Amino acid sequence: MVLDPLIKVAALVGGVGGAKLAYGLSKILSPDQLTLIGNVGDDLDLYGLHISPDLDTVMYTLADRANPVTGWGLDGDTWAMFDMLRCYGEDPWFRLGDRDLATHLLRTQWLAQGMTLTAVTERLTLGLGMRHPLRPVTDDRLATMVETEEYGPLGFQEYFVRHQWKPTVRRVWFEGAERARPTPEVATALREARILIVCPSNPVLSIAPILAVPGVRELIENRKGTCVAVSPFIGGQAVKGPAAKLMGEMGLDISVHGLIRTYDGLLDGLIIDYTDRDQLQAGESIRVRVTQTLMQTADDKIRLARECLEWVGSW
Amino acid sequence: MVLDPLIKVAALVGGVGGAKLAYGLSKILSPDQLTLIGNVGDDLDLYGLHISPDLDTVMYTLADRANPVTGWGLDGDTWAMFDMLRCYGEDPWFRLGDRDLATHLLRTQWLAQGMTLTAVTERLTLGLGMRHPLRPVTDDRLATMVETEEYGPLGFQEYFVRHQWKPTVRRVWFEGAERARPTPEVATALREARILIVCPSNPVLSIAPILAVPGVRELIENRKGTCVAVSPFIGGQAVKGPAAKLMGEMGLDISVHGLIRTYDGLLDGLIIDYTDRDQLQAGESIRVRVTQTLMQTADDKIRLARECLEWVGSW
Repeated sequence: MVLDPLIKVAALVGGVGGAKLAYGLSKILSPDQLTLIGNVGDDLDLYGLHISPDLDTVMYTLADRANPVTGWGLDGDTWAMFDMLRCYGEDPWFRLGDRDLATHLLRTQWLAQGMTLTAVTERLTLGLGMRHPLRPVTDDRLATMVETEEYGPLGFQEYFVRHQWKPTVRRVWFEGAERARPTPEVATALREARILIVCPSNPVLSIAPILAVPGVRELIENRKGTCVAVSPFIGGQAVKGPAAKLMGEMGLDISVHGLIRTYDGLLDGLIIDYTDRDQLQAGESIRVRVTQTLMQTADDKIRLARECLEWVGSW
Repeated sequence: MVLDPLIKVAALVGGVGGAKLAYGLSKILSPDQLTLIGNVGDDLDLYGLHISPDLDTVMYTLADRANPVTGWGLDGDTWAMFDMLRCYGEDPWFRLGDRDLATHLLRTQWLAQGMTLTAVTERLTLGLGMRHPLRPVTDDRLATMVETEEYGPLGFQEYFVRHQWKPTVRRVWFEGAERARPTPEVATALREARILIVCPSNPVLSIAPILAVPGVRELIENRKGTCVAVSPFIGGQAVKGPAAKLMGEMGLDISVHGLIRTYDGLLDGLIIDYTDRDQLQAGESIRVRVTQTLMQTADDKIRLARECLEWVGSW
């Protein structure tokens, strides 16, 4: 047994990279033991649909339904609706798969009926047979915004998808964060989590919006437990996505030490890839473990999750 | 030339059967000469989408995009979203094709942005390359309701699709009709139409909701022009759909004379199928023409439309 089944674990998770570690964790820990806390900062309204890309990526990944090539979207999905939009002269910049649409239609309908995003997400995950609780950090609206040199302020998906994270980023902020509150489910999960894992997601775009919800950071800091992150960088670069480029543009240090500073006192430990081991110095301020963090196969995901839990469990 | 191009024509049209004649008319008359007035009584909200089945059927048919087997839906459409709903434990009773969804998403979004159904329909039809104006009879909400013996009151699509028109019908009424108004476009088209054609649609479920909008009947009666209907019956039965069954249950006479009475003084002429010619008596109250009304091929549709126009044009 990797971990005493009475020890509760929570994980902060963004999109594709984070979902891979969450997948590994879900294969080791029971649904009673593990709660996933998801980012909603990249949610968007498109064609009247409420789309939660990060929640969907985690859900599809843990339900073994994710597209294995892209990491997002549903395996074997088709694009008939998307292509048809073009017949109507639309120029859609956000790809919506046909199967994927069922998720968005149901979420939108249930939200309109007054269900919380938490309740909607629970119903969707159960429907897909995902057994571990996936909790949006908040049921309130919170939008990750990106100030770019070329286009001024952009919504996250406009920056990320429409402009393919090409614009130069000056600043990131979270619209609505000051009025958002963590859900009761998230507050309980954070309070009870002896181990909190920060998945290898973009620290600025995926994890920061979770931490930006007032009360979340306090809940993490005030609980009795440890916090460990898995670095999203390999060889000083993001595996995919804009993390390194964007942090560089914002003047953030993307080294191991920069990452520790970005999480600003939150971490007790950090797992980094062996390609980044040269960055380590004697007398690091927190525990650092070096291993292979690239997760390509299911086995990679489970192995890294196990190593992470065993390491923290041994402290 | 079948008709003087200065003579304006309007056609009242429901779903599949009516759309066939409308298709024929559109191949003979220019977009300036022909206005199609569509039924909205069977519109429904499903999964948050505003669906206008009759308008869509007419649009797809005239844009040469309709599914040739069913008569409704888009040719070559797929059902990935629909099937995915079942994975979420839904039991969807109204089939939504993947391509078809683009229509519903855009309509819903544009309506939510404040566009009228008339403007939305114009944008959709132009997008698909349908050049003839298709005008919803009203931009107000009007819902065809069916009082059934087995289930009490049902919305039209619940009766028609969910229960496959099996319930016994006691009464049909049009919710919201008293507050609905014909659009300016419909009022103009009816005023200017020297020839008004009532397409072979269900008189009670497809044409009656158009006539139920206050002012429509007056516009038709007060204008200078003729009105001719094509009977939806062949051999005393509906080609498809519930027209004969439902009218029988409601105690309506589905003979030629019953049909004339159902339209209650509106008609100057009626085209019936040769299989119903035995019903004719000497000294009919209106002109009746006997021909083949079954429309299977594009040629059938154009031939019947031409015969209809030539007949009325000869009066």
